[in-house]
Amino acid sequence: MSESLLSSRNLAFELYEVLDAEGLTQRERFAEHSRETFDAAIDTARSIAENLFAPHNRKNDEHEPEYVNGEAVLIPEVKPAVDAFLEAGFLNATREFEVGGMQLPNLLSQACFAHFQSANAATTSYPFLTMGAANLIENFGSAEQKQRFLQPMIDGRFFGTMALTEPHAGSSLSDIRTRAEPAEDGTYRLKGNKIFISGGDHPLSENIVHMVLAKLPDAPAGVKGISLFIVPKFLVNDDGSLGKRNDVILAGLFHKMGWRGTTSTALNFGDNGDCIGYLVGKPHHGLSYMFQMMNEARIGVGMGAVMLGYAGYLYSLDYARQRPQGRLPDGKDPSSSQVAIIEHADVRRMLLTQKAYVEGSFDLGLYAARLFDDTQTLASEEERSTALELLDLLTPIVKSWPSEFCLKANELAIQILGGHGYTRDYPVEQYYRDNRLNPIHEGTHGIQSLDLLGRKVSMNGGAALKQLLKLIHGTCQRAKEHASLTALRQPLEQLLARLQAVTLALLGDLMSGKVNQGLANSALYLKVFGHTVIGWRWLEQAIRAEEGLAKGNPADRDFYQGKLQAARYFLTWEVPSCHHDLAILEARDDTCLGMQEAWF
Amino acid sequence: MSESLLSSRNLAFELYEVLDAEGLTQRERFAEHSRETFDAAIDTARSIAENLFAPHNRKNDEHEPEYVNGEAVLIPEVKPAVDAFLEAGFLNATREFEVGGMQLPNLLSQACFAHFQSANAATTSYPFLTMGAANLIENFGSAEQKQRFLQPMIDGRFFGTMALTEPHAGSSLSDIRTRAEPAEDGTYRLKGNKIFISGGDHPLSENIVHMVLAKLPDAPAGVKGISLFIVPKFLVNDDGSLGKRNDVILAGLFHKMGWRGTTSTALNFGDNGDCIGYLVGKPHHGLSYMFQMMNEARIGVGMGAVMLGYAGYLYSLDYARQRPQGRLPDGKDPSSSQVAIIEHADVRRMLLTQKAYVEGSFDLGLYAARLFDDTQTLASEEERSTALELLDLLTPIVKSWPSEFCLKANELAIQILGGHGYTRDYPVEQYYRDNRLNPIHEGTHGIQSLDLLGRKVSMNGGAALKQLLKLIHGTCQRAKEHASLTALRQPLEQLLARLQAVTLALLGDLMSGKVNQGLANSALYLKVFGHTVIGWRWLEQAIRAEEGLAKGNPADRDFYQGKLQAARYFLTWEVPSCHHDLAILEARDDTCLGMQEAWF
Repeated sequence: MSESLLSSRNLAFELYEVLDAEGLTQRERFAEHSRETFDAAIDTARSIAENLFAPHNRKNDEHEPEYVNGEAVLIPEVKPAVDAFLEAGFLNATREFEVGGMQLPNLLSQACFAHFQSANAATTSYPFLTMGAANLIENFGSAEQKQRFLQPMIDGRFFGTMALTEPHAGSSLSDIRTRAEPAEDGTYRLKGNKIFISGGDHPLSENIVHMVLAKLPDAPAGVKGISLFIVPKFLVNDDGSLGKRNDVILAGLFHKMGWRGTTSTALNFGDNGDCIGYLVGKPHHGLSYMFQMMNEARIGVGMGAVMLGYAGYLYSLDYARQRPQGRLPDGKDPSSSQVAIIEHADVRRMLLTQKAYVEGSFDLGLYAARLFDDTQTLASEEERSTALELLDLLTPIVKSWPSEFCLKANELAIQILGGHGYTRDYPVEQYYRDNRLNPIHEGTHGIQSLDLLGRKVSMNGGAALKQLLKLIHGTCQRAKEHASLTALRQPLEQLLARLQAVTLALLGDLMSGKVNQGLANSALYLKVFGHTVIGWRWLEQAIRAEEGLAKGNPADRDFYQGKLQAARYFLTWEVPSCHHDLAILEARDDTCLGMQEAWF
Repeated sequence: MSESLLSSRNLAFELYEVLDAEGLTQRERFAEHSRETFDAAIDTARSIAENLFAPHNRKNDEHEPEYVNGEAVLIPEVKPAVDAFLEAGFLNATREFEVGGMQLPNLLSQACFAHFQSANAATTSYPFLTMGAANLIENFGSAEQKQRFLQPMIDGRFFGTMALTEPHAGSSLSDIRTRAEPAEDGTYRLKGNKIFISGGDHPLSENIVHMVLAKLPDAPAGVKGISLFIVPKFLVNDDGSLGKRNDVILAGLFHKMGWRGTTSTALNFGDNGDCIGYLVGKPHHGLSYMFQMMNEARIGVGMGAVMLGYAGYLYSLDYARQRPQGRLPDGKDPSSSQVAIIEHADVRRMLLTQKAYVEGSFDLGLYAARLFDDTQTLASEEERSTALELLDLLTPIVKSWPSEFCLKANELAIQILGGHGYTRDYPVEQYYRDNRLNPIHEGTHGIQSLDLLGRKVSMNGGAALKQLLKLIHGTCQRAKEHASLTALRQPLEQLLARLQAVTLALLGDLMSGKVNQGLANSALYLKVFGHTVIGWRWLEQAIRAEEGLAKGNPADRDFYQGKLQAARYFLTWEVPSCHHDLAILEARDDTCLGMQEAWF
């Protein structure tokens, strides 16, 4: 098996042929970078992922963390892997050189990170969560908080978590009950219970910094009364040394279907009345801080789903090439040799579907990562905020589409391996179990669909949507230069026109107060919107493939042909399937909304 | 939670309002039965399933069988459950009174069995496999074989397996290598290896009777050279007592993603040159014998998939009714109470989708079971063979459709439970893992699609297809009596007309020798055919619901409204989605067929 994590040819295609990663080096922040430094970072990531992450992926699954004397115990392979990750600088890949970072574009950081996500989703979670927590403090914490908590995270001594969910309030954050009482010294005393806190305990770092949502005594009801607190596992003395154990108790571990290597914890804050927390930023602004970091987290979750899909795709592809079984329908002579199963049309269908889902959403995830770079490094404030609007709009798709369709890809990978795929002797069943988490955490599918239709498409007068439409039209325009792409372009144009009309109609409903009705079929809207976006990305890839073919390098010919075929699959097999969903949306069909509880 | 295995109101609807189970009592074989005896059998099944099967379903999963000193060891709860099943007579539910059976229609036997499948798929496998093996001997074995092996199976002393798959030959039975050499005493010596043999070893019975496919020395190549053998774990003396251990060795156990409580074994036959087998029926006819039993086995697998879907649906429905979370889009006041999640339109969508998938395929499975009764008990040979043709045609749908869509239902059940659904504290994740087996075993999805398009629709000049079309048209005709059903009937009629045309076109291709092309998109054909059949069954249910409503019993009103809404969901949301698949089939689209290995 040549490559198991991702296709490096495909990654190079994305970075250097589709997304112009080299163009980023023209920006001041990335001026010291070049394709060589980018590739060196990627090589390092691949090497560590292959050598230290992938080998214990199955063991992580078989030996999930255990609760021993109030602490979570992991298998010993996790720490050296995470340490190597830290040592190589990936935790701070995007940070400035002066604080010890690599000052890489987010695009490259995500490209590196993708290798770890493919190799071992569970072990990768620990640094991933730490990055999220660190970014929160970096963006909204005080200088003193940065000194005390962020710097040790950057140094790899402290890890972090995001503590939002409570037993009675999963998606409904406005109903959290964790309280924070101000103490006389300016700190706070927290009391409450959180569940499903990933990485909430582990022995990988000296300390764990929990970023906790809680309510102050005078908090207004709902989401506008949520504040954000730093709650360390161990207090930190002024000199940076660890102080006493804070009153945060590991109440237990959840046992999951997959993603087992990552501790999912129940944490009790303040059981003994002495849980010290530090307010981040202003009171009652916690959720908005959290949401400002959500784009990155959701890109990360989406890319995690992509990479599990990618790992399964590559494994099943390799298997299909090696495994002889049966004969073609027109070759029934039982004395002839069996053919490799990749010869069977239906196996090809399952592989091509996986390729379309995985490489389509891989492209989108990296596109979003590059957009994030634009939000940080474009020249003008206006350009940056335009980029941010587009990223805000795309985020629900980046998060949800791979969570659904790369899970489907994993289902197909199992099917290709048949009975073997169903056993734990092969990795594909674990990818499937691991990936089933992704449509749930960081905002369920349902939440994403409400975010998209109820908020994102209409924000700022629909400015982001207009921007996206313009980009898609631009791609269609460029596709016209390639006669061979007509059959791929037209289905996208047809879908886009209809989606646009449906969007206006639904927004009209919402504005006229028919909110429940207008949002009732938001799941279908999310699917159609997602297929439009992925269809657009595939048309973009197809254009680049045509351009690549025109260069006439024989070594690349097969690669580009594969891109064109996968684009054809997605745009002619998948994209037109959305018209029926659009018809339901157009009709304001109330079949689901009208179903009564008593009728079930 | 009122009912966890299935809705008994829905079962009564199927038996007594849709499928006319009472009509079967007019037939001589079932003359001693009545609705009362049927219901008594169902009550017994439910009681045993609830009290002895369901309680150890999770434990089966957590403590999978272990390989100890060459034997498979199960958790202790399995045997009392299986014993109660045997004691109550369910193994022989359909057998004649004189051999100790209940002489129940297959329809009722399946209805009883469904409770066990819902409660505990893994434990249920052991008697299920025994039934299949017993039926093989009953239909094709000699009188002496029946005496020696079948009678102890009927008595519950011996269990059985079906041993087809070999390491290098999963779906491709023509390539099996297990050999059977004739010995001088008329028995045979087998040598070969089989894998994925469910129930291949366990401590539940005195003996295990393996039904083994193998090739004689003079066998022609391919499937026409396969013979069927009885290979017992222990030889059986003339007086019925157990003789010496046969040379069948448990080489190991497979460790699966789900369905863990059922041993999946690797068996070595004849490692020591002394594996004694007994030829069943005529040489080289083994596969045809096996296939004649396939209808029942595949109905059983399909119903197994349905019942895992059913269990998940009921659990998530109950959860959605109990769990408060969030507010409706038009009720954002954070000081108001949270609503039960069943109030959210998208949760209703996920529940209604599950209901449509589960109750639609539950109906089809029972319809097929009743058809099986017709093949056995209709008055004339001609009527019986007509029924058999229809059953043959429907079998790939009965097996594959629930395997795909009730798995999807399980995915939705997890989603409704959110993070909780992903933990092993709730049962839905296990249903999902268990159900993932069903699209693989007893003929993969791909195999079913080739069976349908390449064999079933054209057999006997398309006689079965014509019969089915007539039945569906008949249902549509009856639906016309209900103006309220117009919007449900029309999508089915439209799909049917187009499916008919596509079928003729594809069969034309196959007959003109374009076999690889004609079968290339058989997976889409299977989906469309399946949706047509399930759509038909939903329209049939909708008619019965209208009839029920007309009777005006207030206690039934909600039930019938639910049926109509689920029918509306399936016929207006799902059925029309097939038109795009039909367009691909009509175009003889070669996107997948044309994909080259080197392009991946």
